[in-house]
Amino acid sequence: MAQTVRRPAPRYGNRPTMKDVAARAGVGLKTVSRVVNSEPGVTVETERRVREAIDALGFRRNDSARVLRKGRTASVGLILEDLADPFYGPLSRAVEEVARAHGALLINGSSAEDPERERELALALCARRVDGLVVIPAGEDHRYLEPEIAAGVATVFVDRPAGGIEADAVLSDNAGGAREGVAHLLAHGHRRIGFVGDLPHIHTAAERLRGYREAMAEAGAPVDERWVSMGPTGAERVAAEAARLLSGPEPVTALFAGNNRVTVTALRVLADREEPVALVGFDDIELGDLLRPGVTVVAQDAALIGRTAADLLFGRLEGEPARPRQVKLPTRLIVRGSGELPPAGR
Amino acid sequence: MAQTVRRPAPRYGNRPTMKDVAARAGVGLKTVSRVVNSEPGVTVETERRVREAIDALGFRRNDSARVLRKGRTASVGLILEDLADPFYGPLSRAVEEVARAHGALLINGSSAEDPERERELALALCARRVDGLVVIPAGEDHRYLEPEIAAGVATVFVDRPAGGIEADAVLSDNAGGAREGVAHLLAHGHRRIGFVGDLPHIHTAAERLRGYREAMAEAGAPVDERWVSMGPTGAERVAAEAARLLSGPEPVTALFAGNNRVTVTALRVLADREEPVALVGFDDIELGDLLRPGVTVVAQDAALIGRTAADLLFGRLEGEPARPRQVKLPTRLIVRGSGELPPAGR
Repeated sequence: MAQTVRRPAPRYGNRPTMKDVAARAGVGLKTVSRVVNSEPGVTVETERRVREAIDALGFRRNDSARVLRKGRTASVGLILEDLADPFYGPLSRAVEEVARAHGALLINGSSAEDPERERELALALCARRVDGLVVIPAGEDHRYLEPEIAAGVATVFVDRPAGGIEADAVLSDNAGGAREGVAHLLAHGHRRIGFVGDLPHIHTAAERLRGYREAMAEAGAPVDERWVSMGPTGAERVAAEAARLLSGPEPVTALFAGNNRVTVTALRVLADREEPVALVGFDDIELGDLLRPGVTVVAQDAALIGRTAADLLFGRLEGEPARPRQVKLPTRLIVRGSGELPPAGR
Repeated sequence: MAQTVRRPAPRYGNRPTMKDVAARAGVGLKTVSRVVNSEPGVTVETERRVREAIDALGFRRNDSARVLRKGRTASVGLILEDLADPFYGPLSRAVEEVARAHGALLINGSSAEDPERERELALALCARRVDGLVVIPAGEDHRYLEPEIAAGVATVFVDRPAGGIEADAVLSDNAGGAREGVAHLLAHGHRRIGFVGDLPHIHTAAERLRGYREAMAEAGAPVDERWVSMGPTGAERVAAEAARLLSGPEPVTALFAGNNRVTVTALRVLADREEPVALVGFDDIELGDLLRPGVTVVAQDAALIGRTAADLLFGRLEGEPARPRQVKLPTRLIVRGSGELPPAGR
């Protein structure tokens, strides 16, 4: 049947094939394959004809076919917890830069803090034959990755360690950082310090709480359990809990915020109060230096974390044979004003 | 040769195959294939045996092989300009949510504002046979995508239109938003208003500058070309230009910042000055409400932009036959204080 439409409607399956290229160039299929795969045995003139046919038809090699033949795909996957959390921006970018330096494509996705979704995404990426995975885990059981790791998928966990398997991990010194931040509040005269953190089963949340308890114990300051509030870091719960900690006959005089989302909500609560309340937050926040007072934070180096994880991943892919390693990166206390406010006089 | 190591070192190519599953289950290859692909013709007992073998061996279907047979991959690609720009966080998350609702995996990457990298990434994703692409373009010539689009890859451009081809696009009303923001400054008595924007060849930057000029013209306020500064939005250049606009015998009394990065740097410059200077920024910024004064902005709805683009993409994949469409989404002026400061008295 004659084609009367000048350009067929786009549809799957009408991509030009190597056969189309061969027909147009007037050569055999093997010759086209040699040109496409940069193999020897083709004259300059023939290669020119094949390349012209490729350009004219818009032919592209199907990398899915290559994967089946060659094993490696030059792609790595990154599973984040939340694409919209600003902490992951510089981390993703750092992983991508390292991947690119190794000629690999970064494939990204997010678990939205759902273990089932993390598993589904990780296995979907493995089914697409990524060479390696960087995982910020949402779940606590990663035995589902064992067959993948055994089959050669290099896997590095970031921010939180793997559960149930031995695997490389790049973590911040969460306990040490929180201990330093809380010690800073204690050094400025606070004894009643509230801790508002994430869900207690989350590794980073538990570690930061541990740091809080250690700092308080070192200073001989007893912890009233009503000062510790662990749970979802949505604005509603955090605002209610911060308000609770700051009310009653014996309110706290300082707050330690367990992550950037808690800090932002705590700042909103404190902005509405007359009496100044000291605040130190875990994670830096943009514009934290421009608020009055500036926001004192325990900062993680998200870009360094991403770079370290990606370096570890590509080291494994290049055959580094060592046992799984856990790298712990230091945090940094940035003093800007909010953490140096004295206890409100009462 | 006998295996003496209990667990072989991970390497490529030692994944269990369907053949291994068939051997372990004591059935034929075709039977395994039927179970894996949920095809009929297998007894309950045989299916159980096959599933046990699959679990025991850790077999996973290779989706790369499926792609070759079925055409569709249930994956879409998203090319961002910069993974670390907070504008793209909610946008990516919205695209991912829509993709997930359609059972598709989102594959993400960034061009880092480099047209060559955009092209490379887009073609790499097409070579991996994504069903569709959402592109925030860095380049101005997208004819390289014509063969892909003709072959059925649904493609939607976001934030900036495609160049050289007709394609779906989801844009903010950049000119209208900037016009409203500048008109707001004019309404508060300003006549000398500086505009600090991105590189002039970037569509959004040019459109926002157009909105500035239109607002000034409507108010009968002549524009001194020294008030307009277009270029890279790194902190160094923006700080220098903001300082220049605010100095000399006839400084501007207000600044319009062309995007969130410009706004953040402008805020740092203004924080060091005694005399208040009015500021309106394009794009909202986190904590903009907590600064004193609060930061008046022209906000885009990044999540709505992402959702709209993804809906358009999956509509195309489901066969919507219409001509390429351009959707323009409104912006919103958020009044918080910095844009309502009167001109400094001189």
